[in-house]
Amino acid sequence: MAHYAKINATHLSELVEIVGQGNVFTDSEVLIDNSHDYTEDLRFLPEVVVKPRTAEEISSILKLCNRENIAATPRGAGTGLSGGALPVHGGIVVSMERFNSILNIDERNLQALVEPGVINQVFQEAVNEKGLFYPPDPASKGSCFLGGNLAECAGGPKAVKYGVTKDYVLNTEVVLPTGEIIWTGANVLKNSTGYNLTQLLIGSEGTLGIITKIVFRLIPLPTENLLMLVPFRDAGKACEAVSAIFRAGLTPSALEFMERDCIEFVMKHTEVKIPLPAGIQAHLLIEVDGMDKEVLFKDCEKISSILEQYDCEEVLFAESSQQKAELWRARRSAGEAVKSHSIYKEEDTVVPRAELSKLLSGVKMIGKKYGFRSVCYGHAGDGNLHVNIIKEDMTDEDWNTKVPQGIREIFELCVSLGGTISGEHGIGYVQKPYLNIAFNESQLNLMRGIKKLFDPNGILNPGKIFSDSYAE
Amino acid sequence: MAHYAKINATHLSELVEIVGQGNVFTDSEVLIDNSHDYTEDLRFLPEVVVKPRTAEEISSILKLCNRENIAATPRGAGTGLSGGALPVHGGIVVSMERFNSILNIDERNLQALVEPGVINQVFQEAVNEKGLFYPPDPASKGSCFLGGNLAECAGGPKAVKYGVTKDYVLNTEVVLPTGEIIWTGANVLKNSTGYNLTQLLIGSEGTLGIITKIVFRLIPLPTENLLMLVPFRDAGKACEAVSAIFRAGLTPSALEFMERDCIEFVMKHTEVKIPLPAGIQAHLLIEVDGMDKEVLFKDCEKISSILEQYDCEEVLFAESSQQKAELWRARRSAGEAVKSHSIYKEEDTVVPRAELSKLLSGVKMIGKKYGFRSVCYGHAGDGNLHVNIIKEDMTDEDWNTKVPQGIREIFELCVSLGGTISGEHGIGYVQKPYLNIAFNESQLNLMRGIKKLFDPNGILNPGKIFSDSYAE
Repeated sequence: MAHYAKINATHLSELVEIVGQGNVFTDSEVLIDNSHDYTEDLRFLPEVVVKPRTAEEISSILKLCNRENIAATPRGAGTGLSGGALPVHGGIVVSMERFNSILNIDERNLQALVEPGVINQVFQEAVNEKGLFYPPDPASKGSCFLGGNLAECAGGPKAVKYGVTKDYVLNTEVVLPTGEIIWTGANVLKNSTGYNLTQLLIGSEGTLGIITKIVFRLIPLPTENLLMLVPFRDAGKACEAVSAIFRAGLTPSALEFMERDCIEFVMKHTEVKIPLPAGIQAHLLIEVDGMDKEVLFKDCEKISSILEQYDCEEVLFAESSQQKAELWRARRSAGEAVKSHSIYKEEDTVVPRAELSKLLSGVKMIGKKYGFRSVCYGHAGDGNLHVNIIKEDMTDEDWNTKVPQGIREIFELCVSLGGTISGEHGIGYVQKPYLNIAFNESQLNLMRGIKKLFDPNGILNPGKIFSDSYAE
Repeated sequence: MAHYAKINATHLSELVEIVGQGNVFTDSEVLIDNSHDYTEDLRFLPEVVVKPRTAEEISSILKLCNRENIAATPRGAGTGLSGGALPVHGGIVVSMERFNSILNIDERNLQALVEPGVINQVFQEAVNEKGLFYPPDPASKGSCFLGGNLAECAGGPKAVKYGVTKDYVLNTEVVLPTGEIIWTGANVLKNSTGYNLTQLLIGSEGTLGIITKIVFRLIPLPTENLLMLVPFRDAGKACEAVSAIFRAGLTPSALEFMERDCIEFVMKHTEVKIPLPAGIQAHLLIEVDGMDKEVLFKDCEKISSILEQYDCEEVLFAESSQQKAELWRARRSAGEAVKSHSIYKEEDTVVPRAELSKLLSGVKMIGKKYGFRSVCYGHAGDGNLHVNIIKEDMTDEDWNTKVPQGIREIFELCVSLGGTISGEHGIGYVQKPYLNIAFNESQLNLMRGIKKLFDPNGILNPGKIFSDSYAE
């Protein structure tokens, strides 16, 4: 356990000098606001919250942290699900909320230059207006920041056709933990010039640098889409149908899975109504998109005929854009709905697509073995299943001892199926104890070495990713 | 300059012990074969060539190199254009030619497990047979190895729609310079688990490890395509038309540029006939692909009407698959055709797509200033222009002094336009002197630090990427 310096009056006055009086916060309301993200019920109080506006200000803050051995935790919108923004060692929270400008949408080059504190959906709508498309759309898109999306390499439903955050980032401006400000790449679609620092930063969960500008590539906006809701009596068959669709040469723009419990929680939590006759175990939500409605109708016909082979019930087509929005709202509120019901832990399992039914049945068996109930939903087309383990009336002792054993077994199953322990949420704080399931000592040593190279004093987002980091 | 040990009889007998007598070569024919790749007329003799068959054998070789301070240079098919496979410090060439198995094509998961010595086209054809598609297709696809494609992050014509090598690699098995064998990721489409070692290895030009297995993701094979050849009297207008096509929401599966000189060289070198009336300065070669021919015809109509706005001459459609193959053969043999004409240097410039005409006119102006002729062609849709500077009757002195100044100026132009100095060929040996145009000391220090972390003794592919590597 590293011992970081406590914030003192001299530090505070230096911070005020860097970002201005109005952007340094020590009142308990702000500290409490910045003590949690969306991860479980975890809270860690920072000692001070600063809200810089420029890369140069962040550079000065991090130089101070290096000189004085202070922990600094970068924070986006705080919508993370693995605790990446939790200031587990106290110190300074560096809030990115004032980096909220879309600096340029370059229609000639189909690129955009954006600050990391822009909300995902705000950016999506801005590029849509110009006929352009930025696909990554995590469930929290209405509030999450693009910088956080990069930090965790966020996905979302559209990833199945369009890829994840890393597939849209060409270049980033980053303040390194040492205070140096660099660009990681160039504003080009192809780049074989030196090591790929851009891809190293993406998904590094704020441990290697603080992103201050992002260059995205954009693509043409698909003008048409169709959405189908497909009920199954057998959840395993629903999973099997997923890979059959891709094997037939079809690539839906979303292919989501929700099991019965998930839909019930959602209907309790929201006013959305989803047909759920007795005996239905799961739904698939399938979207196709493109430029030509005729082509999409043909695709839906092909998809329907595949689904029938897996014993689906009657396929429902969303008939209006309102109905589509309702269904998406249902899917996007799944996490919230479960959280409102009970304390829970969210696991972000991911396996090769065709192994999904093995994963699902394995999760249920492991739950039985350790005595916990799980609610499963997620991006089935990517093999990415969110497993929500709910506490309900479990004792604290079982919750604290048996559940971690069960999680370990679930993750071991993922790895044995060719998968890994996080598809889009990151390791952050809560999954650290399980990282050694995914990686052996050789792999971990390389990663720790990279961390040490970037952050020799271990001041940036300490206590994340590595459970036995040199920095702790 | 590092001083590596010379290979002695003890080393040779240890190598024989590791890979067997039949796989250790010191005869001059093999040494000469392994002394060059496709880069200019450069030759560096290795002292010994070994042909291992397993990751464990490579591990033993690299452990020997560490212990005895021997330089090891991994080699694929030797088709590289930046000298990545040149054994510039002598020592051992580690030939990957026996790693030539496609281990598994997993149709359920749309993935493949492949060894790095498989030829790109052999792999493409094997997956095509199953209705699947691996898009990256460098000009050398008939002979280049997939491992080399990863090392350089190769692109090719289809990158404009489908992305480059890095976009299809899910996971790799790598022998680290220290001899440790690791996997860099997992076999999944989404991965937020630790730092992205897979993407760090791709494009690292054999300096961070030797790739011994690759897990690719595959996509459904498009069944239809159309190919258009579009002549322009004004090469600048051809470049401008390129970005207009994308701005209109169209994404061709290839969008290639060839200037008149290039086409003339190709027709001299091959028997391919391409219509080239007087006054035509450049051609665009435009392909669209997909599952539905009607849609493609509509796309071609839209593309044609955009091209007309940029004063193209009459668009020619390839009418048969034979004609398509001919046109592609012409494009793919451009580099060879230029090389057969004269000693040349190939620069792999890349800029944001809409800056292409500025780059082209800048290249010509710089050529005039320094007195050299250039032949330009390339992946215009990606902003990736191959600039072939030809020696012809230039004096050796001008070639050795003026041309490097001109190249430096071309690369400075690329960077000032938001681009960089290599899009798909890598830095390797020949572009090292220019790396400081793309990166400042902060960036270079990080990259050198990564190299040192992976390869503390600097034994793997020394003398590449960094001109002032700690390892030299």
